[in-house]
This record gives sequence, structure tokens and C-alpha cells, in this order.
Amino acid sequence: MQIKSSLEDNRADELAHFFDLIKPKIVEYVSRADPQSEKYEADSLGKFHGPEELKKIFSNNEDLETGIKGNDSKLEGFVDSVLKYSVNTWSPGFLDKLYASNNPIGVISDIILSALNTNSHVYTVSPVLSVLENDIGKKYAQFFFDDNQDTCGGLTFPGGSWSNITSMQLARAMKFPDTKEHGNSNYKFAIYTSEHCHYSVLKGAILIGLGLDNVFKVKVDKEGVLDTQELDRVIQNSKEKGYTPLYINSTAGTTVFGSFDPFEEVAKIARKHGCWFHIDGSWGGNVVFSQQHRKKLQGSRLADSITVNPHKMLGVPTTCSFLLLPHVSNFQGALSLAAPYLFHGREGDDENFDLADGTMGCGRRPDAFKFYLAWLYYGTEGFASRVDHAYSICKDFVEKISDKPGFSLVVGSKQNLPACLQVCFYYRPEGYTSDLCTPVTRFISRELHKRGKYLVDFSPNPSPNDSQGEFFRVVFNSPILTPDTVDDLIASIVDAGRDFKPQN
Amino acid sequence: MQIKSSLEDNRADELAHFFDLIKPKIVEYVSRADPQSEKYEADSLGKFHGPEELKKIFSNNEDLETGIKGNDSKLEGFVDSVLKYSVNTWSPGFLDKLYASNNPIGVISDIILSALNTNSHVYTVSPVLSVLENDIGKKYAQFFFDDNQDTCGGLTFPGGSWSNITSMQLARAMKFPDTKEHGNSNYKFAIYTSEHCHYSVLKGAILIGLGLDNVFKVKVDKEGVLDTQELDRVIQNSKEKGYTPLYINSTAGTTVFGSFDPFEEVAKIARKHGCWFHIDGSWGGNVVFSQQHRKKLQGSRLADSITVNPHKMLGVPTTCSFLLLPHVSNFQGALSLAAPYLFHGREGDDENFDLADGTMGCGRRPDAFKFYLAWLYYGTEGFASRVDHAYSICKDFVEKISDKPGFSLVVGSKQNLPACLQVCFYYRPEGYTSDLCTPVTRFISRELHKRGKYLVDFSPNPSPNDSQGEFFRVVFNSPILTPDTVDDLIASIVDAGRDFKPQN
Repeated sequence: MQIKSSLEDNRADELAHFFDLIKPKIVEYVSRADPQSEKYEADSLGKFHGPEELKKIFSNNEDLETGIKGNDSKLEGFVDSVLKYSVNTWSPGFLDKLYASNNPIGVISDIILSALNTNSHVYTVSPVLSVLENDIGKKYAQFFFDDNQDTCGGLTFPGGSWSNITSMQLARAMKFPDTKEHGNSNYKFAIYTSEHCHYSVLKGAILIGLGLDNVFKVKVDKEGVLDTQELDRVIQNSKEKGYTPLYINSTAGTTVFGSFDPFEEVAKIARKHGCWFHIDGSWGGNVVFSQQHRKKLQGSRLADSITVNPHKMLGVPTTCSFLLLPHVSNFQGALSLAAPYLFHGREGDDENFDLADGTMGCGRRPDAFKFYLAWLYYGTEGFASRVDHAYSICKDFVEKISDKPGFSLVVGSKQNLPACLQVCFYYRPEGYTSDLCTPVTRFISRELHKRGKYLVDFSPNPSPNDSQGEFFRVVFNSPILTPDTVDDLIASIVDAGRDFKPQN
Repeated sequence: MQIKSSLEDNRADELAHFFDLIKPKIVEYVSRADPQSEKYEADSLGKFHGPEELKKIFSNNEDLETGIKGNDSKLEGFVDSVLKYSVNTWSPGFLDKLYASNNPIGVISDIILSALNTNSHVYTVSPVLSVLENDIGKKYAQFFFDDNQDTCGGLTFPGGSWSNITSMQLARAMKFPDTKEHGNSNYKFAIYTSEHCHYSVLKGAILIGLGLDNVFKVKVDKEGVLDTQELDRVIQNSKEKGYTPLYINSTAGTTVFGSFDPFEEVAKIARKHGCWFHIDGSWGGNVVFSQQHRKKLQGSRLADSITVNPHKMLGVPTTCSFLLLPHVSNFQGALSLAAPYLFHGREGDDENFDLADGTMGCGRRPDAFKFYLAWLYYGTEGFASRVDHAYSICKDFVEKISDKPGFSLVVGSKQNLPACLQVCFYYRPEGYTSDLCTPVTRFISRELHKRGKYLVDFSPNPSPNDSQGEFFRVVFNSPILTPDTVDDLIASIVDAGRDFKPQN
């Protein structure tokens, strides 16, 4: 009996055919969202569709049984629907999240990763991508630690949360190596973080077996910056109650306000109490590329670990997150477990090239390659100009709304600009009488989305002293944004606000 | 002053240009690895290159400073080198890992994900992909639990390790909800697993703050199957010592031998002791698609959680891993933390569409889409024939080496075939005198790689009673494999073995 499968017959031809099928669709998709293109459509972002509606549209149950191989029209119909009903993140109106659109070189990096279909867990199967990850991780880390620090480096993790969680595990394994055998049982560990931190710090504490009781949330000032005197007091008090200080999380670019904690001060307190000092720079860490703004990171060289996500401020395709260490060999030193069926060891190499061995995971998509190629394409200079441009757009928006009736900043001012690339503001339409902005903010946000033009986010104040309800949080983080976009966004908010009725 | 960036000028044109630049390279790359193509080259897998050599080749320091935008020849040179020095996983000789090559529809799914550049953490930015993930997660889960079970479902995690780790956190949060506040402090939790389990179970135990002392490794029989009587005894003993049984890990397709634990029996013991019952089916779980082999999963309907990776046996691009639950709402119920700046809540929806809320992470690459599109393309029938074909190739190999001098199986026989798609065997070349196969196995494996033809893995026996050293572990998991590949592989091993000299 001949054993043969026809499932993957003529792969090269099929792939060539698929390239021809998908290219015009994707190029068209990007054109429609690009103000520079003749095909630009102002509502290309896409309108809101609820889950029930989409479930009906994407109900492919019969085809899932038999497959649609060989039926191009079904395949094209499916792809067209996916593109049509998704949010077109290439649109200048995608101002919702801390990441922006992809870009052409980013698509190329994803295509290469897909073609290689490798796994950067061991060197044997991913030699090139392991070398590039080590190389770019070191270069990146030297921006934060020290240009000449030869020991520093970084690895990617599948998102900022996992980078943060890994840093907690590193802290525990490095400072209390007996926990590898005994767990937390001999300690009452404490973690300290500002009340404006990302939720992954809390989830991380739960995951590593501490629980929320062991997380001490420290007050911030009205701009969302960690109060270091309070931090010192909180640590001192917790020690008196029998806690063992494990880990201080500080933030470079908080999620809501975009604030930067005072890292030099935090470092001193961490040293005083023998605590691990982590910087969650998932969002704001990449200001390191800007000559003008990198001073916000002063003290980063003193950190024990730094999370920073090229997929946010640098436009690398999602997801790409690095955890950087002053001594990169600690990944393997602290996290390795002998798994001889996978990690066979190689003689004469002083660097770790079996990268998964230094993580708490196994299989890894080689996300670092996307960063490497973006860096190679745009250069350090390109990244610098990207960050500076985004800050300029942000400034433009702040200056313009400062003069507009109805707008008021939640944090920052024309003179004292927001620390990062998001602007948090209230908007009250003419005649709006309530103190609380939640209903009008949600209404306008929904209206803008309904028009297919803007997707903007909103949030309550993460400090408990808030009294004006939810506000807009708009993120300016794309090289395609111009002052025209800013003008149009402001006009669109005012316009949508006119339709608000208090009973809505 | 006009604020303008030229970094992403003319994105649509640039993207169209890049498609034209990359398409011939990728198609050529696949052609060279495809025995059906005229351009097939037997050594297309690629030869081994050490890290020092590659570091010299990929030393782009000056270009990283200024960038190479606009310089197509530099870009092409870089891409060509990445392809040239990487392992070509499309080659029929890529038999090393538990995943096979990508396929054309897989590349299309990655291109669409890259174009969408969305983040499946909240519905607002990823409406279609959230609906598709819920839909396919449920359909997938019904294969393991019950066709009619309307409550079941699954979410993706960035690799089997994270799915397993998440299942441990679910177990703790569901069974001992007070741990969310107090951590492990009130308990001395115990985890039980076979000594052949994947290392992620151990790393997971460390990560969740238990430590290796709290992991009880249970003996296996000579085929690597968990001894359930021993499991019962170990749990009983641990209880008498004051441990609280938390979690039993059993495996569908162990990493080295590919064995399946007896899930019906494990379920009974789990119920008896009030333990969470997890199945790590990262590798073997997808036999669920085969009418002939799905009986190996008998009892899976009783599991509390199941990990299964479409990126392994089903040829979906890496990484794509699901954690399936009988009650999918428990993801959010057990793992959610209020984060009102991200999860705004929506009225009238009884399903969770803000998917990150039910995970311990935040940003998520929507890996489920790759699985959805592969399933839609090949159909349930295609997946079934894929799995059955791979088993036939495996059988062909086992039958052929059973008659060949020098070959001996570590586990299984012609009559009692290996349980999964890998074959573990020793090979001793003619005249080889040592009992221990480690040097000859490593030599042959390295030789095959040097020839650019085959990448095969090797491993020590995970049971301590092993006495013959390391053996080959070859994985037959691709629709392009034929009996000709099998014949050629056997001949190549014999041939490479001829060059072995004991002093090597």
C-alpha cells in the first residue's frame, strides 16, 4: 500500500498562488486607511459590530467539516469578511491603544517568521534567530544600563505581562534560591508598586503564589508619580510586620497617565531594603531613543530588570516585549531546569544560545526578529525621529485643546506637557450640566467608532480621589499622524458631543 | 512649524513593493525543500553553523545606526542570509521537533494577522478575531469533552507551557479562592505528575510558588505510562504528611516516548482526593481528530483542563496552544482582576469577549485565527487524514527498522506500535562494541545535519533505569513524508554510522 497524503501537494505553487491572492487585498486594505493614498476613505477604521452580529456572519460550520481547499471564492470571501469587519489599525483614527499600526517592514518580518516557522527555544532549530536575539537584546539593554556594559542583554517574552511576571520569578530565584525547592513557604514576601501600576503586577503576584495581601500599593502624586518617601515608609512598616521585601515595581509610562517614576530615588530605597528593583517600561521605556526625552529614564542603569515593548512605541508588530537584565546570564542561571531531552548542552560556548532554558516557558515565537529588522530598516536615527514626532503631535493636541471650550486636561498642561504619548482629558459639550463625565465620554467614544473614523479609549482615574468620572485617553503614537489629524479629531469630538442627550 | 514624519510615507506602495520583493524568495525557499518541485535540493534543510560563525555574518552594527530604508540591495542581502543560514523546516528532513513545517494557508494566516496587527485582549480592537477564537475554542473543546456540551471552550496561550501554567493557576483559584488574597500561605499544596512529564509542569510549580519539594513524581511503566496505583499511594502518603492535593498532571503524548496516561483511571483518583485533573495534550491531544487513534484519549471528557497545541500535530504555524475547559466562563470567573482602564464591561453579553480578562496576561497575539483558518481550509476531514497519514509513516518506519540489523526500539514494537508520532530507537553501526549509544547517536545526528539533509533529535531515557545511553527520537509529522523518505532516512543513518570511529 502506498502511503501518501495530498494535503500539502505542490506547496510552492500553492504558496505563490496565495501570495497573488492576498497581496492586492492587503495593499488595498492599507490604501484605504492611508491619507496619502488616492483610495483613502475617512471611515476606513471600520464601524462597531457586536458579537451577535459577527457570530452570524462568521458561521462556517459546514465548511469546517469538509474544508474549502481548492475553493478560492470561499477562501476569498472569508478573508474579505475578516478584513471588512476588523478594526483597520492602519487608519490614522486608531488612537485607542498603546500600540499603533503595523508598517510594511513589519509585515515582511512576519512573513519571514512564518516562512521559517522556527521556534527560538533551542539553537539547533533557530541558529540565526537566536544569534540575532542575543545581539539585539544586548544592544537594546546597553541603552538602558550602560553603553559599555558587556554583560547586559535581554530576551523576548510574549507580552509585557509575561516579561513582568518573569522578572518577579527572577527576583525570587536570585535573592532566595531556596524557593526553587521549597516555594514561598519559608517567607512572607512583599511586593511594592504604585497604585497606578499595570494590572500585570497584581496578576503576577497572584501567579507567583503571594496573593494580593502581599502587594503594597504606594500612593502617587497628582501626576501619577510614585511617592518615594511613602514607598520607604511602607517598606519599613511591612518589615516590622514580618514581611520580607522582595520586589519593587516602578513604571516608565504608566498605562493611564503615562507618568514616569523617579528611578534614582527608587533605586536608593531598593538598595536600602535589599529589594529587587524592576522598571516596567512596557510603554514608556522606548523614550530611550529620544535625546530629548530619555532623561525621564534617569536611574534605569541601576535597575535589576526592565520590561520594554518594541510593539508599543516603536511600531513593531504585536507582540514584541523584552525583559532586559544587567547580567543576561542570570536568565539561565536562575531559571534553568535540566531537561536533557531538549537542552543537550554544547561545549565551549560561554553564552546561552538555547534561549528557552532561561525562561519559564518552552516553545517561543522568535519575536526579537521583528525588532531586529525594524531597527535595521529605520536605524537608531529612525526610532529617535519616530518618538520625537509622536511627542510633537501630542504637544500639538495639548496646545490646541487648551484653548478650546469644554476641554480640560486630567494631567499636565500646555506648560507642563504629559510625560508620555497619551493625553487624558475631559470634554463637556456646550450646555452639559453634570459634574461627572462618564456618560458623555462613553457616548462620544461610541459615536466616533460608529462613524468608522476614530477609536479612542477612556478610563476612570486610577487614583481614588477622582471625582469627575471617566475621561478620554487618546494615544498619539504613529508617524502618519499630522496636525490635520489633530484638528479633525478635535472637531469630531465636538461634533459628536452635540448629539449627546443627558438621557442617553 | 509643520510636524511631519516621512518614516511611513506611502505605506501601500512600500508594502506592494515588499510583497514583490519577498514573494519570489519565499517561494524559492519552499521549492528547494519540496521533493515535488523541480527545484528540490536534497540538502535544502541547511547545514549546521555555530554561533561564532553566524555572529560574524550578521554583524550589522553600522546599518543599525543609520538604517537601510530605501536600500533594497542591503535589505535583500539580509533577508537572503537569514533564509540561507536558517534551518529550512519545509524540508522532509526536518524530523527533529514535535512540530513540522508551516504550509501555504499557514503563511496566509500569518500575513492576515500581521496586516490586522490587532491584539485579542479586548473585543473593541479585535471583534472578529475574538468571536472566531470563542467559536473555534468551543468546537475544539467539544471534541474532548462532549459534543453537546455547550459550556465548554478554550483560549490560546503563547505555548503549551503557558497553557499548563495557566491551568495550575486556575486549579488554585477555583479550588482555593482565598489564595487570590493570601497566596499559598495557608496551604502546603502538592502537585502530582508522572516522571515522564514535560518540564513545564516543574517550572510551573516553581512559578506558582510551590517549589520542587511540592511536586510528587510518580513512576511509569516501561512504556512511559503513569502507574495509577502508585499515583493513588503517593497522594495518600502526601496527605498523611500534611499536604493538600491540588493538581494532577497527566500527559497525552509524552515528550520523549509519546505515551498516553490512562485518563479514566486518573480521573477516578483525582475525584477521590479532590484534585484538579489536567491533561497536557500539547503533543498528543490532536489524535482526537483520528477515528482510529482518538480512543487513546478515553476519559478526556472528565478532565478539568486540557492543553493541546495545533502548532504541533496539525501543522498550524508556531505558536498556537489552547487551554480547554469544560466551563469556559471559569477563565474569567477565576482569573479576572478589575482593570477598568482596559475592560470597560458591556451590557447584555453573557459570554466573555474581552479575552485577556480570563488570562494572567494582557496583550495577546490572536493565535486562534491561524487554527481557525487551517481548520476551515482543510476541514475536520483534512485534519483526520493528516493525523492518520502521519501514523502510517511512523508505522512504516517501525516496520522497516525492525528488520534492519543494528536498529532496536526503545519503546514499542512492530506488533505494539509507539503510541504517538515519534520513534525512539538505538542504532549501533556494524562493529560497534560499546553498550552505550550516546557517542554514536550524537555523531550520526551531527553528521546528518552537516550534510544538510536531516535534522533528528536524541534524548536520554527519562526513566532512571535506562542503561544504554542516549537514543534517537525521530518525529514523523508532516503530510509531505512518504515511504521514500523513510527508506532514505534509514539508509542515511546507516551511511553516517559507517564514518563513526569510537575515538570521535
